Amino acid sequence: MTIHKLRVGIAGLGRMGKRHAINFHELTIRANVVAASTPDESERDWAQENLQGVQIFKDYDEMLENADLEAVVVASVTAVHAEQAIKAIKKGLHVLCEKPLSIDAEVAQSVVSAYEECLKTHPQQKVMCGFSRRFDASYRDAHARVKKGELGAPVLFRSQTADLQDKSGFFVDYAKTSGGIFVDCSIHDIDLMLWFLGEERQIKTLQAVGVIALHPGLEASNDRDNAIATVEFEGGKMAALYCSRMMAAGQEDTTEIICERGSLRVNMQVRKNHVEIHDSQGARRELPQHYYERFREAFVTEAYEFTECCLNNTPPPISLQGSVKAVIIGQALQRSMITGEKIFFHEGAIKD
Amino acid sequence: MTIHKLRVGIAGLGRMGKRHAINFHELTIRANVVAASTPDESERDWAQENLQGVQIFKDYDEMLENADLEAVVVASVTAVHAEQAIKAIKKGLHVLCEKPLSIDAEVAQSVVSAYEECLKTHPQQKVMCGFSRRFDASYRDAHARVKKGELGAPVLFRSQTADLQDKSGFFVDYAKTSGGIFVDCSIHDIDLMLWFLGEERQIKTLQAVGVIALHPGLEASNDRDNAIATVEFEGGKMAALYCSRMMAAGQEDTTEIICERGSLRVNMQVRKNHVEIHDSQGARRELPQHYYERFREAFVTEAYEFTECCLNNTPPPISLQGSVKAVIIGQALQRSMITGEKIFFHEGAIKD
Amino acid sequence: MTIHKLRVGIAGLGRMGKRHAINFHELTIRANVVAASTPDESERDWAQENLQGVQIFKDYDEMLENADLEAVVVASVTAVHAEQAIKAIKKGLHVLCEKPLSIDAEVAQSVVSAYEECLKTHPQQKVMCGFSRRFDASYRDAHARVKKGELGAPVLFRSQTADLQDKSGFFVDYAKTSGGIFVDCSIHDIDLMLWFLGEERQIKTLQAVGVIALHPGLEASNDRDNAIATVEFEGGKMAALYCSRMMAAGQEDTTEIICERGSLRVNMQVRKNHVEIHDSQGARRELPQHYYERFREAFVTEAYEFTECCLNNTPPPISLQGSVKAVIIGQALQRSMITGEKIFFHEGAIKD
Amino acid sequence: MTIHKLRVGIAGLGRMGKRHAINFHELTIRANVVAASTPDESERDWAQENLQGVQIFKDYDEMLENADLEAVVVASVTAVHAEQAIKAIKKGLHVLCEKPLSIDAEVAQSVVSAYEECLKTHPQQKVMCGFSRRFDASYRDAHARVKKGELGAPVLFRSQTADLQDKSGFFVDYAKTSGGIFVDCSIHDIDLMLWFLGEERQIKTLQAVGVIALHPGLEASNDRDNAIATVEFEGGKMAALYCSRMMAAGQEDTTEIICERGSLRVNMQVRKNHVEIHDSQGARRELPQHYYERFREAFVTEAYEFTECCLNNTPPPISLQGSVKAVIIGQALQRSMITGEKIFFHEGAIKD
Repeated sequence: MTIHKLRVGIAGLGRMGKRHAINFHELTIRANVVAASTPDESERDWAQENLQGVQIFKDYDEMLENADLEAVVVASVTAVHAEQAIKAIKKGLHVLCEKPLSIDAEVAQSVVSAYEECLKTHPQQKVMCGFSRRFDASYRDAHARVKKGELGAPVLFRSQTADLQDKSGFFVDYAKTSGGIFVDCSIHDIDLMLWFLGEERQIKTLQAVGVIALHPGLEASNDRDNAIATVEFEGGKMAALYCSRMMAAGQEDTTEIICERGSLRVNMQVRKNHVEIHDSQGARRELPQHYYERFREAFVTEAYEFTECCLNNTPPPISLQGSVKAVIIGQALQRSMITGEKIFFHEGAIKD
Repeated sequence: MTIHKLRVGIAGLGRMGKRHAINFHELTIRANVVAASTPDESERDWAQENLQGVQIFKDYDEMLENADLEAVVVASVTAVHAEQAIKAIKKGLHVLCEKPLSIDAEVAQSVVSAYEECLKTHPQQKVMCGFSRRFDASYRDAHARVKKGELGAPVLFRSQTADLQDKSGFFVDYAKTSGGIFVDCSIHDIDLMLWFLGEERQIKTLQAVGVIALHPGLEASNDRDNAIATVEFEGGKMAALYCSRMMAAGQEDTTEIICERGSLRVNMQVRKNHVEIHDSQGARRELPQHYYERFREAFVTEAYEFTECCLNNTPPPISLQGSVKAVIIGQALQRSMITGEKIFFHEGAIKD
Repeated sequence: MTIHKLRVGIAGLGRMGKRHAINFHELTIRANVVAASTPDESERDWAQENLQGVQIFKDYDEMLENADLEAVVVASVTAVHAEQAIKAIKKGLHVLCEKPLSIDAEVAQSVVSAYEECLKTHPQQKVMCGFSRRFDASYRDAHARVKKGELGAPVLFRSQTADLQDKSGFFVDYAKTSGGIFVDCSIHDIDLMLWFLGEERQIKTLQAVGVIALHPGLEASNDRDNAIATVEFEGGKMAALYCSRMMAAGQEDTTEIICERGSLRVNMQVRKNHVEIHDSQGARRELPQHYYERFREAFVTEAYEFTECCLNNTPPPISLQGSVKAVIIGQALQRSMITGEKIFFHEGAIKD
Repeated sequence: MTIHKLRVGIAGLGRMGKRHAINFHELTIRANVVAASTPDESERDWAQENLQGVQIFKDYDEMLENADLEAVVVASVTAVHAEQAIKAIKKGLHVLCEKPLSIDAEVAQSVVSAYEECLKTHPQQKVMCGFSRRFDASYRDAHARVKKGELGAPVLFRSQTADLQDKSGFFVDYAKTSGGIFVDCSIHDIDLMLWFLGEERQIKTLQAVGVIALHPGLEASNDRDNAIATVEFEGGKMAALYCSRMMAAGQEDTTEIICERGSLRVNMQVRKNHVEIHDSQGARRELPQHYYERFREAFVTEAYEFTECCLNNTPPPISLQGSVKAVIIGQALQRSMITGEKIFFHEGAIKD
């Protein structure tokens, strides 16, 4: 008797694409990567060597046409996320799309519309945006406690995504297409904010300020390398966000949920592993150097749970509409940061 | 041969007044508390028992009139800080005034004016507002590193004053005269912000939002029990503040200074002492329960250094004008929180 | 083209057997669990449900006889480790044997002898004892630093294995066959001690003392539930060990390596995940509740590396002879604890 | 009305003597340092400048003869502790003697005998050995919890005194008169061990091993720079000690008390202050560089409480006989370390 394995195609084999490919192919028992597509020759060579038995395509459409797929993981550049996702959706395939769906809220919404349309004929189809932190054991522990009400209702959500500095110019290049620091960097914090404070909760106001501290080249894209924001919700809840491209010690992604009878801290004592080094400079620990070093396990869990929900026809762990809301908020924060204006929402201004 | 001891009078013997009295009387070798005044009878009884050899007055003016003083510590209710300070200043006495000088920026400024006037005739007179955190060893360590430029220029200053919850109604009563959460609770963070980012640095914008989460009674004073703010400075610097009356575990006063090449955290792992308790619930440490438990040592140092600067005619460790600026900013944040408006400063809007 | 997968049989499907089965079957891309044997019916039922496509045997010998195996994982009760390992070795199979090889040093040595004999005809055969901590990322980080000499030569090695209390009587039962707390609990610390201080390093003396604090039933097996030991090596190196069955908060396995110019701490701030909880009792984190919760990732790595060394004919990551030495030391510590005598070794007393 | 202040003489103005002088003179409201004696000229000059109004003597006996004293603090070199203490005792003065009373148990016992003799005629006389850690807030917190039985009975006491490395040769010189690393360095841990496990508890066995890792010159004094020990008590209790002169990062004095239902850690995350520094090397904190930096507050409390017990005729916080027992144990550990023998005690072998 052979186990049925989900037949997965990977779109894009850049840094994240490679990781998804390995996670689905090697670490997800009920999934099989059967195809991959990428316009990049060296990425195709990598697939040849590392993804045994996989059909490799130069072109995404060709893969959709020819490979025998049940699901697609969209891990290509952000600019084509929505387009590729929609094409797969229309073919009735399950889709796991890297975040964000798009840097444009309307485009992101069009993915939801396509999905809603297809659901009518393919009610078992699953489409999900890959907000990896939701699969992290620590965030889940914290969320379960908040949900149970262990510490009373949450009042303030504080969160940051703070990347290791990189003086190579990477962030400057990246800013040209990233949608801006709030859409790119903070999108996880925004998603978590909605998860912890309530996805249907209405925003009243938001505002942001930002500076260019390290990367003058960001001026050209009208972006910033450090920014802070506050968000005010209906029902007496608030959030404070920080995003940065300037951390010296490593990736410092931390979150606090301050509730009526206590608070939860996720990763406030950032650490790479369990080692502490004592030498003439004091006692020190090292930090993860990038997002994936911190969240690798979460990506493996994401691959596993996405596969399970496709095979078992259970609801996807993350709602697609919420992922659009995250983009809307990210764009609004970016706009506030650039214009300097506080943004007031009126009822219905952000569609849930 | 006898050592000359600074003859100190204490105005007000409430919680802070008692502490100042003990610190000057018992722990400051070159100071002697020779008089104290308070309208409260039980406080005068306390003085009788605990401040041996001290002249005790019901009335502040009487103390000024009759006691042989060189210096006054103003530790009475905030409402009379400025008035009492000015009276002492006019008599040529050194003054250490508890923070804030006033909850009203104009009144605070009048203290500075009185001092400037008196300095003409008493050039050795010292007047200082007691921002105790500036005397804390950890904040000083952090400030020295920033000043040396060890980690490059500061970009973002984040700080919070978060009080232990108190369900007795104390905060509601207190709000009637405190000037609001930003003027009362955040005044230390504002002072530190100026200390770390530059006291003369011009503010461009600020805004705040707040909620009432625990104390509905605050509505009457138009105050909040949790609030967050962002402040934008000229020269590419920012600050994020948080103030709270709702902490479940204790007093959590923490600060981060994020610089170009690294960052400094002060008290991010809040702890009362060096003990960790492992039991069936996990590993736990206790937190200081109130501000003084965390900063007791800093108050002792403050008493010592104030005494030294008076006796040795050296500059006071904190500039009086900066203390007025802190009140101006606190008031502006409070106004922004209540109105919901972002406040834009124009050149010269905040006088240095 | 299909990838060649190592055909693995699992002997024993108790707690650890199940974990090994899953790790090899689902998380090790180049391995396939093709057979499993266990005398326990409910374990066979588990296999039926969870290890699709696997041949299931009641009897180990039958599995060896009939399944098409390249490697065997011995995860049965300690009493049969050596016997089962030797049978597989004699059939020319690769063997990963759970620790310890035996609770008797002579029996353990017989596994080495069998292996050495077979190597003559099967030079590519791999036999390894599963000291899982050697595959833990933190221990590896620490070991790499010591090996590089970053902090100078190690002087003192301190380590503990401290299990969560269990009042069910489990430890009392277990003590009947475990070989004693130093052979069972401390065997990992002993292995690490040899790894960090040098596997060929000669021991001069050792001694141990122990108490029964929680489990009076241990008296019957002449075992203890808390014990401490010191070990003295040639060349000016020492070790201090602690083993316990009494930890209230969780599994607390920690290690320190104190070197001439600094020291390394592994897991001194034991934590289950990245969450900290602040409530009216203070700030607290939870601990892992058992060994596997702390070292799950290390077992996955072990499965991966064992598979790789079998398929690629590279040296196994752990020397088999060293694993016998660990048993010899464990037995000597146990003897010292029971007799109260310090044990002096003479040259050659412990065979390397 | 003037407050009565205890008239204190300080014997010895070396490092510790100066600190005691300042603590009594400046920070203890009910004490006055009225005299000090030291054979060292530069120390007398220091007194002249820093202890205003104090009579300064070259000779201890002269001070006893001429100064108007109620109490003496013996802070001279260890070799004269006992002799000076006894002289003061015989004059009916209260005595606070720096630890250890002597490096020789018999000599230490003679101090107790002298005290017992004098108590007959001066029942209000107080004599105490200054085990400063007993006045530390964290140790007190831990001790109070153990005494209350919060976590059940203690089973294992682990403690260390680990000094910052010093390559100046200081430790080699010091070893000539220190009595050895267990008598000097571990004496605090031994005192704490007795405090936590019971001062009257009988020891069954002890043993120690040590090495010279950094300071070959210690060979001449037959001392070691790193040593570990185990102590076994009647009643199922144990202790593990570590002493070191080799810590690279700072003074690392830590203690664990492992009890039946939980455990207490004192200072396991050694830190100088509340600052954490993040830079390209990771996240780091600094450590106290020496014993006094960690325990300064405890010494101030010691001065205060010693003064109070003298003036109020209350029992001294530490029993003198226990301080002799600490010396006996220290000497036994030192002997075991040097001879390599385990030492077995018979009933009454250590007099309580």
